[in-house]
Amino acid sequence: MRNIKLTLSYDGTCYHGFQDQGEHLPTVQGELEKAINRLTGERLRVCAAGRTDAGTHALGQVVNLRTHSGIPVERWPYALNAVLPSDIVATEAHLVPLDFHARHSAVEKTYRYSIDNGRFPQVLLRRYAYHVPEPLDVGAMAIAAQYLVGRHDFAAFRAIGSSTISTTRSLRALQVESHSAMIHVTASADGFLYNMVRIIVGTLLEVGRGKQPPLWVKAVLAGRERAQAGATAPPHGLCLMSARYRGPGDGAMYGGETTT
Amino acid sequence: MRNIKLTLSYDGTCYHGFQDQGEHLPTVQGELEKAINRLTGERLRVCAAGRTDAGTHALGQVVNLRTHSGIPVERWPYALNAVLPSDIVATEAHLVPLDFHARHSAVEKTYRYSIDNGRFPQVLLRRYAYHVPEPLDVGAMAIAAQYLVGRHDFAAFRAIGSSTISTTRSLRALQVESHSAMIHVTASADGFLYNMVRIIVGTLLEVGRGKQPPLWVKAVLAGRERAQAGATAPPHGLCLMSARYRGPGDGAMYGGETTT
Repeated sequence: MRNIKLTLSYDGTCYHGFQDQGEHLPTVQGELEKAINRLTGERLRVCAAGRTDAGTHALGQVVNLRTHSGIPVERWPYALNAVLPSDIVATEAHLVPLDFHARHSAVEKTYRYSIDNGRFPQVLLRRYAYHVPEPLDVGAMAIAAQYLVGRHDFAAFRAIGSSTISTTRSLRALQVESHSAMIHVTASADGFLYNMVRIIVGTLLEVGRGKQPPLWVKAVLAGRERAQAGATAPPHGLCLMSARYRGPGDGAMYGGETTT
Repeated sequence: MRNIKLTLSYDGTCYHGFQDQGEHLPTVQGELEKAINRLTGERLRVCAAGRTDAGTHALGQVVNLRTHSGIPVERWPYALNAVLPSDIVATEAHLVPLDFHARHSAVEKTYRYSIDNGRFPQVLLRRYAYHVPEPLDVGAMAIAAQYLVGRHDFAAFRAIGSSTISTTRSLRALQVESHSAMIHVTASADGFLYNMVRIIVGTLLEVGRGKQPPLWVKAVLAGRERAQAGATAPPHGLCLMSARYRGPGDGAMYGGETTT
């Protein structure tokens, strides 16, 4: 039995999220498990670092799978890509200790939200960026974002109805940067509440549109009430960029570049 | 009667090219004419600078249309985008003299071909770039490209069966540039033969793969035989970037930035 850590990128447009719902709806997990079954004959379950929503993308999703297959680990991306649909691409494979778990072992995840702030949508990016045609004050959004960085109770930034007990998370970085008409909001944390990035983005957009001053975001955080925060930004602007792991030697083993 | 010059961007993935084939297949022209009909009630035909193939994209396609509609010219992009499918976006509109013709009046067109030269495809760009996983020698491709620049008979770079009488064109620029794993081949000319950019790219790829030296491209050009050139690169890597016009005052009137 070997435990394999895979890095995946996917276009989430056609999927009902990463996680299998048991409802015969297409999911990234379902496609991946089908592909593994075609390669190895095994019916196994994969775990993912981030359970991305319907329509959300990934460039650095991490999953792990425990397999009896003798396929050399460095061949896994090629073998999987030969049977996966073209909107899911495996990009790396590493052998990891058996106790490695893509979600539980992750010490940090990074998401990026893309806002297309041009007057008209950039047509080739329409599935990967949220088009907001009104001029946005990126500087004010960046100032507002800084009030959220740190270890806080993010109850205000959690979808209503989610059941997590603790709503405290460490938001290590929250950057707002513009590259011509595209605005990227990049968030790194030890974990994210359900819809947390999308609600943060919806809240920063209130500031960007000039409806609220940056300091209002600090009050929203302190209020811990979902209703005080902004709307949930749509899923298609969101992309899981990476997951970071601490292994023996601080990540060198679990997150290394080489495929061995 | 007014003549309106429109700039369009589109994702060509779902279309059988720009031009209507009269076969009830979806085309960009068909969608645009349907949208105009919904706005104005008119059944008119549009002319385009470049008749892009099935699967080929555009960021700066130019069309013109002669209309009796009283919609102010600066409102045309907004009005059209409200009724066009999301994979076609109008980005500019200008009033032009009645004798302006998007194809015949064009003095230069620029196409860009994108090659994804990473080991694994960049999943969000898979419809907009041709994935070539073997390492390519971009420097050799750039040298080879320079043999094609100038006024030449491009008969070797024309799809067999096309009926154009003269095969002489002025290729003003042909640049090969890499941005990390993405290689862009950008071609500007007074006109292009059928499949000319895609055959040029297929030929440069022979050089990039080390199968031919750069000087071979010069011999292919001189030979004027389609069979000597490389394969036709697939359509989805190609994008029409812009069309340039010379108006009174050298383009200021036809190609200006302001929408009036």
